[in-house]
Amino acid sequence: MVKVLIVYASDHGSVEKMANAVAEGVKKVADCEAEIRKAENVKMDDLVSCDALVLGTPVHMGSIDWRVKKFIDTVCSGAWMQDKIVGKVGAVFASGAGYGGGGGGCELTMLALLNNIAELGLIIVPLPKGTPGYQAAGLQWGPYGRAHADDLSPKGLSDDQLVSSKHHGTHIARAAKALKGSTIFG
Amino acid sequence: MVKVLIVYASDHGSVEKMANAVAEGVKKVADCEAEIRKAENVKMDDLVSCDALVLGTPVHMGSIDWRVKKFIDTVCSGAWMQDKIVGKVGAVFASGAGYGGGGGGCELTMLALLNNIAELGLIIVPLPKGTPGYQAAGLQWGPYGRAHADDLSPKGLSDDQLVSSKHHGTHIARAAKALKGSTIFG
Amino acid sequence: MVKVLIVYASDHGSVEKMANAVAEGVKKVADCEAEIRKAENVKMDDLVSCDALVLGTPVHMGSIDWRVKKFIDTVCSGAWMQDKIVGKVGAVFASGAGYGGGGGGCELTMLALLNNIAELGLIIVPLPKGTPGYQAAGLQWGPYGRAHADDLSPKGLSDDQLVSSKHHGTHIARAAKALKGSTIFG
Amino acid sequence: MVKVLIVYASDHGSVEKMANAVAEGVKKVADCEAEIRKAENVKMDDLVSCDALVLGTPVHMGSIDWRVKKFIDTVCSGAWMQDKIVGKVGAVFASGAGYGGGGGGCELTMLALLNNIAELGLIIVPLPKGTPGYQAAGLQWGPYGRAHADDLSPKGLSDDQLVSSKHHGTHIARAAKALKGSTIFG
Repeated sequence: MVKVLIVYASDHGSVEKMANAVAEGVKKVADCEAEIRKAENVKMDDLVSCDALVLGTPVHMGSIDWRVKKFIDTVCSGAWMQDKIVGKVGAVFASGAGYGGGGGGCELTMLALLNNIAELGLIIVPLPKGTPGYQAAGLQWGPYGRAHADDLSPKGLSDDQLVSSKHHGTHIARAAKALKGSTIFG
Repeated sequence: MVKVLIVYASDHGSVEKMANAVAEGVKKVADCEAEIRKAENVKMDDLVSCDALVLGTPVHMGSIDWRVKKFIDTVCSGAWMQDKIVGKVGAVFASGAGYGGGGGGCELTMLALLNNIAELGLIIVPLPKGTPGYQAAGLQWGPYGRAHADDLSPKGLSDDQLVSSKHHGTHIARAAKALKGSTIFG
Repeated sequence: MVKVLIVYASDHGSVEKMANAVAEGVKKVADCEAEIRKAENVKMDDLVSCDALVLGTPVHMGSIDWRVKKFIDTVCSGAWMQDKIVGKVGAVFASGAGYGGGGGGCELTMLALLNNIAELGLIIVPLPKGTPGYQAAGLQWGPYGRAHADDLSPKGLSDDQLVSSKHHGTHIARAAKALKGSTIFG
Repeated sequence: MVKVLIVYASDHGSVEKMANAVAEGVKKVADCEAEIRKAENVKMDDLVSCDALVLGTPVHMGSIDWRVKKFIDTVCSGAWMQDKIVGKVGAVFASGAGYGGGGGGCELTMLALLNNIAELGLIIVPLPKGTPGYQAAGLQWGPYGRAHADDLSPKGLSDDQLVSSKHHGTHIARAAKALKGSTIFG
């Protein structure tokens, strides 16, 4: 089996919905399974035993939720020091209020997750613009869902904002399956 | 007089419209004037003689238009080498298709401009979310206008997408005026 | 009096040293005072009562220390929602292992702090390359000190790596003083 | 055969040296060939016919050389519009003066290249810290060589600064070979 580990934090449930959608997409690929975990419950062994690591976060002031950051600082940094999970597959997703014409810091937030993923030595799966659902909730770095109304009150994600996350999960599982057993680095 | 120099490139006219709106906002401040220039027509002397430098660009594949980049590589880099314009005021704006839930690379594009502005040693004026027009065309780094339809064909900017640019111009002029004559660095 | 608030987290003492050096530079400017606080001890009132906010962090896996991030998520985000501190002055600094030819994620880390600062509507003071000490510990976004040996063991910061931080403090105090009483936004 | 296309611009020869080193690393993998091209000489057909695209650039004021940007704006953007090269492999490298404690904008420069690569839908190969030569010329996003002396005069790259580029080429070729024939997206 190919195992995709999805690690996330969520405030109002939107990132959690996206995590579930990514997992759903993973399971569409034969011989692939998904495990979803809150950031505070993930240990080094979980990183070592997966084939792909997917990180999801709310966007807060243009960077990662502090709970996801605590996981990165205290768990991932150890894996980095010891080159523990080099060569696995990595990917990201996020949700935020996204006030304004852009996404309110979603790019730098997803790049902060990707910084961690690149340092860990993971092969990165982006989100091509032709992915179904991209227009509703896509960014080149991964699915990004705007989950707030114009007055900044949370309104959650609609079904069409979850489509790109499902496809992202499928892409990640396929990449992890195609690369499993290959030695890319070292 | 306080002089604000606005340097830009434009493909379909949207960035040019924003440049004009920034200039309009500058002129609302007493004793402040704006000069608008296409990137290919700006020389070192223009940088030296202004009090504030504002850079505007279309977003292409998540980074600066090559014409603006050529100006930065060939003109700004010389000002950097010689510490020629340290302590002036700097700001940015951009327009793009912005396909997807975020802004299609608008953050990294504006940060590429700001990288140049920080290296030149300019005091940076951001765009606070309370600025009128922010919801229609705002990002924390400056005004950002989405100028394309869902099928990616250019549709231009509406009047309400130019409001934040006008206010940005006013903010920049006020900051340049307040700081004129002060020695912040060195 | 012009008040500069310096908020930081530190693992091995390097960021703390830089915070002290920034404060020292602030105090060189007449009528300016500095207050240094650990991130977990800062409240909204502290933000409201200062004239300049300076944020310092260790670099962990290419982004902000989680304790600084918790402060941003739980305290700064409230100031953003209510547009509480728009128009003050903001700046950043960081320290990290910086393994490799670049700085190991120092740019994205400092930009994550600056994302918060831009969203809060603060006028940003960068670090011009002509600043004394820049070559030893400078980056365009602010002072950056590499504090680890080649084998990644912490070795602390030398005196010449603190020079740019002192000057940064002086620049920030001068900018806050020059802008105090001016209305730039709104 | 697996074909790796290396596209670059160079001012003083350092990026060109790195391009040659990447190509050398590619050729160490059985059934893999490398083609090196200056950015101004690359056409859409070249992108379509390769299995992996590697982009290299000098760092100028914290972003891509304008010649590489012109290639991205005028050639890559067309491939993006038509989803022409989705699912191939992508990677980056850079060289710069890197004045100061960090890398003088190398992160944002490499991320600007990666923004293009992610938008094109390419699977991204980073540079793990355990790669030989990382300490001399490595960054998580790819090899980064500092090529200037402390007074900013160009001094070129030493042999040990080319080691990480060779290994990067080998990694990229292996990833392209492992993924060739797989359908990850769509």
